[in-house]
Amino acid sequence: MSTERTLSDPSVAEDLRRLSELSPLTQCITNIVVTNFTANVLLAIGASPAMVIAAEEAGGFAAIASAVLINVGTVTPEDVGGMRAAARGAQRAGTPWLLDPVAVGPLQYRTEIVGELLAHRPAVIRGNASEILTLAGVSTGGKGADSTADSAEAVDGGRALAQRTGAVVAISGVVDYITDGTEVVPVPGGHELMPRVTGTGCALGAVIAAFLAVSPSPLDAAVSASAVFAAAGQEAGSEASGPASFAAAFVDQLYLLSRRAARAQGAAHVAV
Amino acid sequence: MSTERTLSDPSVAEDLRRLSELSPLTQCITNIVVTNFTANVLLAIGASPAMVIAAEEAGGFAAIASAVLINVGTVTPEDVGGMRAAARGAQRAGTPWLLDPVAVGPLQYRTEIVGELLAHRPAVIRGNASEILTLAGVSTGGKGADSTADSAEAVDGGRALAQRTGAVVAISGVVDYITDGTEVVPVPGGHELMPRVTGTGCALGAVIAAFLAVSPSPLDAAVSASAVFAAAGQEAGSEASGPASFAAAFVDQLYLLSRRAARAQGAAHVAV
Amino acid sequence: MSTERTLSDPSVAEDLRRLSELSPLTQCITNIVVTNFTANVLLAIGASPAMVIAAEEAGGFAAIASAVLINVGTVTPEDVGGMRAAARGAQRAGTPWLLDPVAVGPLQYRTEIVGELLAHRPAVIRGNASEILTLAGVSTGGKGADSTADSAEAVDGGRALAQRTGAVVAISGVVDYITDGTEVVPVPGGHELMPRVTGTGCALGAVIAAFLAVSPSPLDAAVSASAVFAAAGQEAGSEASGPASFAAAFVDQLYLLSRRAARAQGAAHVAV
Repeated sequence: MSTERTLSDPSVAEDLRRLSELSPLTQCITNIVVTNFTANVLLAIGASPAMVIAAEEAGGFAAIASAVLINVGTVTPEDVGGMRAAARGAQRAGTPWLLDPVAVGPLQYRTEIVGELLAHRPAVIRGNASEILTLAGVSTGGKGADSTADSAEAVDGGRALAQRTGAVVAISGVVDYITDGTEVVPVPGGHELMPRVTGTGCALGAVIAAFLAVSPSPLDAAVSASAVFAAAGQEAGSEASGPASFAAAFVDQLYLLSRRAARAQGAAHVAV
Repeated sequence: MSTERTLSDPSVAEDLRRLSELSPLTQCITNIVVTNFTANVLLAIGASPAMVIAAEEAGGFAAIASAVLINVGTVTPEDVGGMRAAARGAQRAGTPWLLDPVAVGPLQYRTEIVGELLAHRPAVIRGNASEILTLAGVSTGGKGADSTADSAEAVDGGRALAQRTGAVVAISGVVDYITDGTEVVPVPGGHELMPRVTGTGCALGAVIAAFLAVSPSPLDAAVSASAVFAAAGQEAGSEASGPASFAAAFVDQLYLLSRRAARAQGAAHVAV
Repeated sequence: MSTERTLSDPSVAEDLRRLSELSPLTQCITNIVVTNFTANVLLAIGASPAMVIAAEEAGGFAAIASAVLINVGTVTPEDVGGMRAAARGAQRAGTPWLLDPVAVGPLQYRTEIVGELLAHRPAVIRGNASEILTLAGVSTGGKGADSTADSAEAVDGGRALAQRTGAVVAISGVVDYITDGTEVVPVPGGHELMPRVTGTGCALGAVIAAFLAVSPSPLDAAVSASAVFAAAGQEAGSEASGPASFAAAFVDQLYLLSRRAARAQGAAHVAV
């Protein structure tokens, strides 16, 4: 396993600065629970969210977007056309995209859709331990959207899944683990209130997608996004009195970290 | 009418403790306005929300869920299949479920759907006075999602509705009234800012559903959920400067009440 | 160009007071990203939101609603029936309605839908500069939901669009410009954090719709809503540490402004 990476790593700070500078257009086809929170998280961190979901528009938009997120959290037959079009459009145009296979395994319908989407070669697969173990063929899934396993237990499965699919696999948990099938990078941090706020994992998927547009590699994108989330979560946790004040402080912190990264670079330019 | 019940009632505290301990998997098919808030309220209070809505998944999931919520607030033809499947699946499997007939009456389409769902025997029907009076056959409805009547005016109608359907009826208002057709329990509390936050009533429906998995009876579930909401609302009102700070404080308070109930039990165990 | 208008203008204060007094039933067919925020903004300012979206209900409801909002932000084929029914129902019944043509131009599918809806004669069209320039036939659109032009650049296009359609055109930006094709009213204010919160523009569209039910003219409705938003945004900006605390403070401020307007009138009544 590699060394832990956190926000203090220069590569993470540089990715965050580039995100804020380039404001990548990040197309999100996500679930109805977290759409608003996801858009606000992307805006806070400096990305430009675009929820373009109709089958009539999603494929063409994926070709011009900088990155794409597909999250099957509340997938219905009406949503599938847009997901297919986006995955296909992204693959054809070479737009990097992330698959978030929420609750795959126990629910057969979405499990089939996830299988179909995987064929369009996502750059990153993000999930909790149960979801990753399911996709790796090791188990048959968790409890709804929540994991019944610890992220560390899914590292071997995640590595195998990465090797089989060519995607970087990001396993969310108390410690996040990111692997490209060879390297495994642990990202510690976050806060115990995080799982009490719906959509923190889903929003992380969206932010990894945004970083795909600016980071040197999908592994770096997943590591940088996770490290920024972990830092914002730790800071927010120290201010919060419960999950709602945590969620607000978390989004504010993402904004402040993004601003700080942009300013630090400005200062460096002046120094040069 | 029975004595008022509040959070200080030992049965309410015990239900809350059990909710936090068992974290019941609560399937929610609800309207697009309140999905995020509902999930966050359930997480704050210690339940495990699962928004499984597709017709392909909702019935099977209702069989393994601990409780189910169906709320017709923004129902479209695309949603009805999932609602039907969930109601049927819950009835077959004996999973207790709650029906929230938002804006029933003035809108014919949803009124027919509500009639159809009622045949699957919800354990609880939650609504405002206008909605309950409409279902009881006494009036033809309120103004959109808002009630034009006071909750006390709907007590007789609610009792009749409970007798006819076999469901416990929960009437939301300044004072909530819960009835199984015989007993009527008033639950006072809450705050005047509550109606200024969208989804407080809808989220109460979800929380009653969650309590159905842990309370001794549907009457107790509705009373406990309403009492916890009333207490959190009162506390949040004393901190808030407007509806948004109220909503955040309310969710934080639900979390704190849940934690306190869990700890109080822990202390009792130690004492034993 | 006319004089700037702000909250201190007596006509704005009077419109706000009437909104709070009459609480107009405002039907919203809007995008899935902002539904919750839109409802909360309307409640805060004293309107009564109703998200009635199904084709089976939307037309009939538009006939009894006080005002209607149609926003194509995440439009899918399943949504179009409800939008058509609402636009047609509003036109027939003489209910004033507002069209928010989110991301029109670069996306062909919604551009066709917007063209069709325009035939039902909205009272107001609200958009950012890119959207207004696109509808005016001057350009072909911005970057997703974000504008690539300054609001001042769209004033001439907006005036032409107003003359062609008979609708008042509201152009959102650092300064908002409202025009009926002759007069152009600038509304300054707001805060730099506003574009970092998803849905502030969409919610403004909903609030203009609500004001259509109480203001002397569509021009006044758009001016009053924009002025109230600008004032609330400025005040919220002075309290916020990031976009999430800004969003909460903004909604609280709308509520406080609404309350103050209602009380000021009460005081005036007493004085008389």
